[in-house]
Amino acid sequence: MRYISSGHSHGEQITIIIEGIPSNLSIDIKKINEELKKRQKGYGRGQRMQIEHDQAQILSGVLFGKTTGAPIAVVVKNKDYQFHLQYMEPFAHDLTNYNPIKVPRPGHADLVGAIKYNFRDMRLVFERASARETVSRVVVGAICKQILALLNIETLSYVKNIGGISCKIDFDKTYIEKSLVSMPSKTASEKAMELIDETMLKRDTLGGICQVEVNNVPVGLGSFVTDETKLDAKIASSVMSIQSCKGVEFGDGFELSNYFGSQAHDEISYEDGFTRQSNHYGGFEGGMTSGMPIILKAVFKPIPTLMQPLQSVNIDTKAKTASHIERSDVCVLPAAAIICEHTVAIEITKALITQFTSDTIEQLIDAVFNYQKYTKRF
Amino acid sequence: MRYISSGHSHGEQITIIIEGIPSNLSIDIKKINEELKKRQKGYGRGQRMQIEHDQAQILSGVLFGKTTGAPIAVVVKNKDYQFHLQYMEPFAHDLTNYNPIKVPRPGHADLVGAIKYNFRDMRLVFERASARETVSRVVVGAICKQILALLNIETLSYVKNIGGISCKIDFDKTYIEKSLVSMPSKTASEKAMELIDETMLKRDTLGGICQVEVNNVPVGLGSFVTDETKLDAKIASSVMSIQSCKGVEFGDGFELSNYFGSQAHDEISYEDGFTRQSNHYGGFEGGMTSGMPIILKAVFKPIPTLMQPLQSVNIDTKAKTASHIERSDVCVLPAAAIICEHTVAIEITKALITQFTSDTIEQLIDAVFNYQKYTKRF
Amino acid sequence: MRYISSGHSHGEQITIIIEGIPSNLSIDIKKINEELKKRQKGYGRGQRMQIEHDQAQILSGVLFGKTTGAPIAVVVKNKDYQFHLQYMEPFAHDLTNYNPIKVPRPGHADLVGAIKYNFRDMRLVFERASARETVSRVVVGAICKQILALLNIETLSYVKNIGGISCKIDFDKTYIEKSLVSMPSKTASEKAMELIDETMLKRDTLGGICQVEVNNVPVGLGSFVTDETKLDAKIASSVMSIQSCKGVEFGDGFELSNYFGSQAHDEISYEDGFTRQSNHYGGFEGGMTSGMPIILKAVFKPIPTLMQPLQSVNIDTKAKTASHIERSDVCVLPAAAIICEHTVAIEITKALITQFTSDTIEQLIDAVFNYQKYTKRF
Amino acid sequence: MRYISSGHSHGEQITIIIEGIPSNLSIDIKKINEELKKRQKGYGRGQRMQIEHDQAQILSGVLFGKTTGAPIAVVVKNKDYQFHLQYMEPFAHDLTNYNPIKVPRPGHADLVGAIKYNFRDMRLVFERASARETVSRVVVGAICKQILALLNIETLSYVKNIGGISCKIDFDKTYIEKSLVSMPSKTASEKAMELIDETMLKRDTLGGICQVEVNNVPVGLGSFVTDETKLDAKIASSVMSIQSCKGVEFGDGFELSNYFGSQAHDEISYEDGFTRQSNHYGGFEGGMTSGMPIILKAVFKPIPTLMQPLQSVNIDTKAKTASHIERSDVCVLPAAAIICEHTVAIEITKALITQFTSDTIEQLIDAVFNYQKYTKRF
Repeated sequence: MRYISSGHSHGEQITIIIEGIPSNLSIDIKKINEELKKRQKGYGRGQRMQIEHDQAQILSGVLFGKTTGAPIAVVVKNKDYQFHLQYMEPFAHDLTNYNPIKVPRPGHADLVGAIKYNFRDMRLVFERASARETVSRVVVGAICKQILALLNIETLSYVKNIGGISCKIDFDKTYIEKSLVSMPSKTASEKAMELIDETMLKRDTLGGICQVEVNNVPVGLGSFVTDETKLDAKIASSVMSIQSCKGVEFGDGFELSNYFGSQAHDEISYEDGFTRQSNHYGGFEGGMTSGMPIILKAVFKPIPTLMQPLQSVNIDTKAKTASHIERSDVCVLPAAAIICEHTVAIEITKALITQFTSDTIEQLIDAVFNYQKYTKRF
Repeated sequence: MRYISSGHSHGEQITIIIEGIPSNLSIDIKKINEELKKRQKGYGRGQRMQIEHDQAQILSGVLFGKTTGAPIAVVVKNKDYQFHLQYMEPFAHDLTNYNPIKVPRPGHADLVGAIKYNFRDMRLVFERASARETVSRVVVGAICKQILALLNIETLSYVKNIGGISCKIDFDKTYIEKSLVSMPSKTASEKAMELIDETMLKRDTLGGICQVEVNNVPVGLGSFVTDETKLDAKIASSVMSIQSCKGVEFGDGFELSNYFGSQAHDEISYEDGFTRQSNHYGGFEGGMTSGMPIILKAVFKPIPTLMQPLQSVNIDTKAKTASHIERSDVCVLPAAAIICEHTVAIEITKALITQFTSDTIEQLIDAVFNYQKYTKRF
Repeated sequence: MRYISSGHSHGEQITIIIEGIPSNLSIDIKKINEELKKRQKGYGRGQRMQIEHDQAQILSGVLFGKTTGAPIAVVVKNKDYQFHLQYMEPFAHDLTNYNPIKVPRPGHADLVGAIKYNFRDMRLVFERASARETVSRVVVGAICKQILALLNIETLSYVKNIGGISCKIDFDKTYIEKSLVSMPSKTASEKAMELIDETMLKRDTLGGICQVEVNNVPVGLGSFVTDETKLDAKIASSVMSIQSCKGVEFGDGFELSNYFGSQAHDEISYEDGFTRQSNHYGGFEGGMTSGMPIILKAVFKPIPTLMQPLQSVNIDTKAKTASHIERSDVCVLPAAAIICEHTVAIEITKALITQFTSDTIEQLIDAVFNYQKYTKRF
Repeated sequence: MRYISSGHSHGEQITIIIEGIPSNLSIDIKKINEELKKRQKGYGRGQRMQIEHDQAQILSGVLFGKTTGAPIAVVVKNKDYQFHLQYMEPFAHDLTNYNPIKVPRPGHADLVGAIKYNFRDMRLVFERASARETVSRVVVGAICKQILALLNIETLSYVKNIGGISCKIDFDKTYIEKSLVSMPSKTASEKAMELIDETMLKRDTLGGICQVEVNNVPVGLGSFVTDETKLDAKIASSVMSIQSCKGVEFGDGFELSNYFGSQAHDEISYEDGFTRQSNHYGGFEGGMTSGMPIILKAVFKPIPTLMQPLQSVNIDTKAKTASHIERSDVCVLPAAAIICEHTVAIEITKALITQFTSDTIEQLIDAVFNYQKYTKRF
């Protein structure tokens, strides 16, 4: 299973092609759109999120409401396109009022992208190096979650930390959906929203940490046999490739550097199948799923587009100058959590489809359920 | 460029095949062996490291001392094999005195591996799911470092934390080579060795954090254009696939969740080429190298083989039982740092070979130097 | 470089995403459309080709008329969609007048596809397993040909044989464009058209052989070092994957079985660079381009959709029955030649982009021209 | 599943690593060696085949006689190495009596390889670009055939044509093993041997055509959904990458250009499962296995090393000169047939392992047999 997207931040649409989805999967387009909506919500988002109401449209690879085994094309239109049409049309030629972008924004791909691809206008970078592209992960992940649901595998995500505010007291997962910042704590949510308000006044931005959990994953996805077959490594790569992600850890992660071995290892017991008495390792042993919940944390740096200028340089004149200011979000952690969750759902689905017979969804369900019976009896 | 290894922890040898190395590279085998020696050193290592003195032997792909462009076969013999010959010979049939391993060790791949591959003897798992296999990363990485040296790219690694002891005072990179625990601080090194002594007495183990730095990397390795072309994501994957690694971060990593955007972003300036005024992002912007030093941290869990038993279960009888005890190291962070460094060297070399003309080493050097002249002038 | 397409034979559109095209390539959309037009022409084509006038539309990955290095989305609409809308809309639910296809056509993917993907309606197979999909090769190949043109590499294709009529006399490449069957011979063209007329009356179909030539390819694309790096093998795979292709050969191909070695080998000479005195091997030595023209022949079986029924079986009742009859072309060799040519152009471009520095088109041109200077001097 | 080899024609050994073989497969090393022996036999082979008696030795990835799921290392020693030790040892430095090879042989990779990799000694090319490397295909294929045997899939190969002598009369497959040229006809075998004798006297060489057949392959391996998923295309690539192969065809192949559609298509019937009434398409429909026998033909050019010189050029002086003469085989078609058969066995095994659950051999057998029951009932 693999997907590829094409599209610009202010272009007509994001186009996605997904290959390797089993045949005969009933696609629920409403569920995809619900996930797209979650990607747009969250306290601290800017104006654009009020313009866009992303809707996925499937063009091919689905017939009579079911997948055909063939590549699936999905489109998400950009409502914002109408305001940028003049220069965002691929063969735009009347550029009378168009000004190329000459000052790279710190923390963005602008400068490196322009050097790499030899551009004198950084729009050619940031139209692609944009978080807008993450709609593709949500679309693909939402289809994957429909497969996972048939296998009783559940994913969950939430925000663990915004600008240093973490969820230490009144931890309550049922609160996540109520929280405007997707945190599992009323106290933390309120503090985080206060911090967002203050930060907005300072014209600054915030980062944070989100957590993804996956329950009921079969034992033994991925393999220890080579460096390239470890599933935790693949997930780490896929999550790290999300815009603004700067770190990934499983289970207790970096905290494990402070433990003795006797405190860290998850002891093994047996009750109607093998289990562990703790989950410090976040559901992975030897690069394979252990059957315990997958626990992953990822850190996202603060949004690089500020309402206060940072120091930069004009790429033509080389003059010191303030970087370009654009309206921007203050904090996108609730969206980041959703994107992480869908990214992990994609990788779990890939692992299942790779490991089990899966030309058809019926085969995949059969193969996984038979395997789970076997692992239970082992 | 890609490599694959085969071999068992107590087998005759680790066999490695590396493909995609440019032709005409002079191979210095002594340098490979020096790196293999570093992998074996460190305060807190157990008995086995006194038996093994790893030596790489190149069998093919090199003629007259230079690479030929063809796949390279390298062998590292296991001195320990002689003690395990009776059952480790691939077609061993006199198993009179051999006892299959029935009790999985917590924190190891033993149990999951046995379930996945349908084994009733967990030796079939741990002979492969072993840190012994990391010699292959060091061999391949040491060849890659010979390429990087020709491009003036330097890698460095050290230990940042052992069991909670970190290098906060008297930070001194020149001390790394003197430190028996590869820490850049005399004070921290001494404290860490004390902790290792105490831990050994307690029959326990320790984990920690190591750091890798890469200097003088060209701007623009990797690309933002798809989720799969980001170089930081590839490095994260490759490091996470090292045995016992549970987290990876770039630059300030998880700390970035506590910063405002205005504190986090690396402002851009120009002095004989573009540069940054700080390096919170650890040398990556938009999944591409920014030209600043690459800074990566990775956490390693405590060694799972303890001298004190942990709770486990016999896979046949399902009876609760203490896990298997073996002589073991207390702490392998100095080795982990070396392995991380070589892993990162491999990924940087892969990125260079992918991006630049590189059938021959002459072509690669030319292409990179020309590109660096261009990036300087941009 | 890679591309993927999605779309149905009678669906709304074919959607293509191409990744890995260098930045800064000026795209000439008219040239793409000219190639698409060639794909539709040829004596012996059926009614549908009068409905479709394929037009490529680029949606993203191109800005200000140039590639950006990012994936490129291209769409080719199906004019025919309007007649099939009722059941070809992905979530069609009013199927009142729709009849599932129950009788597989011999020579088609219908039956095997239905078994593999567990369908009881073979439309779910043939909407994808359709020669309509070859528009994607022409679109991608036409972009590649724009790259090749900048490197002075030229591709040419023609029909060598239709139903046994081959071009033995009055061979004249300048006639190809005039010939309604794309043959380089007036005599053969006329005979072939007569045969097509007769075949149409018999309600039968014809296959044939086409030839692709590529001139001025650099020496040394591809490599002998592994089974997977040989360029002739990659081209063979890509051509064999064209619908209806059943054989591929280079140079004198199967005829070489009748030669002595002394007749077969292309002797080496030197005149302002190395050359060969003949080209029996079709431009490849050791899986690498030799610098001589690439000569490839491919055979296409007769079109499997006949106007006269073949014997088949109803997949539900298992009753013997005549296969489904549809209006169809009699012979598509002129189109096959164009598709082959574009397929080969894609593989040559892939090889160039893999082998040479190619983030930007400027880099690629520089790298190839420098290399060609070097090969000339060798 | 994938394999990679390293080794030189006159070096110490060929080293092969195979990844992705299911666990718990009992390996019969004698069967591997029997296939290696077949690769060396055949009327018309030269002196070297009397020196080499290839023996595979498995070093790792197998324990207690069974595969472990981990990569498998296999070695085949070169007995010939002793005569070339002085300069073939990778770090050879006493080259007193060594003469670099300056005159490329027509039909070999010598010249192109030297240009590509910038060598002034063509030994650096031909030590790798050698048919010696095909032992790796036979070793890997022989392991694959042990998997196929468990699935009741049988492969067969024979020689169809040597230097124009083909098997038109007294066709008899039982004669293949008796024939010294692996032809299924006593008459043809005798004529071919006569031709070989004459050719040897003329100091010339011969090529030919071999055929591979695979019986009882499950329906629906490979897929029509993309250009990259078609199994016939993958097999074509793998066969074309065999040294000296210049063409590949399925079923009636190039002959299909002479048929009407009504003659060419394999009509469908039903007798205890779907079948076809002929097999002109060689077991493939839409890039998928149809359930009919796979029939593949491949052409091999005459051996390029002649005992009579061809015209060439000294790469240093550019002087016209006769090419290097070496003792050589006259005809290797019997070996080519064996190599083709093992190559096809590898690709079929890859397709099975990709398509079906296959961490363990028990899972693979179960999955394939269940699927075959399903296809029978369809």
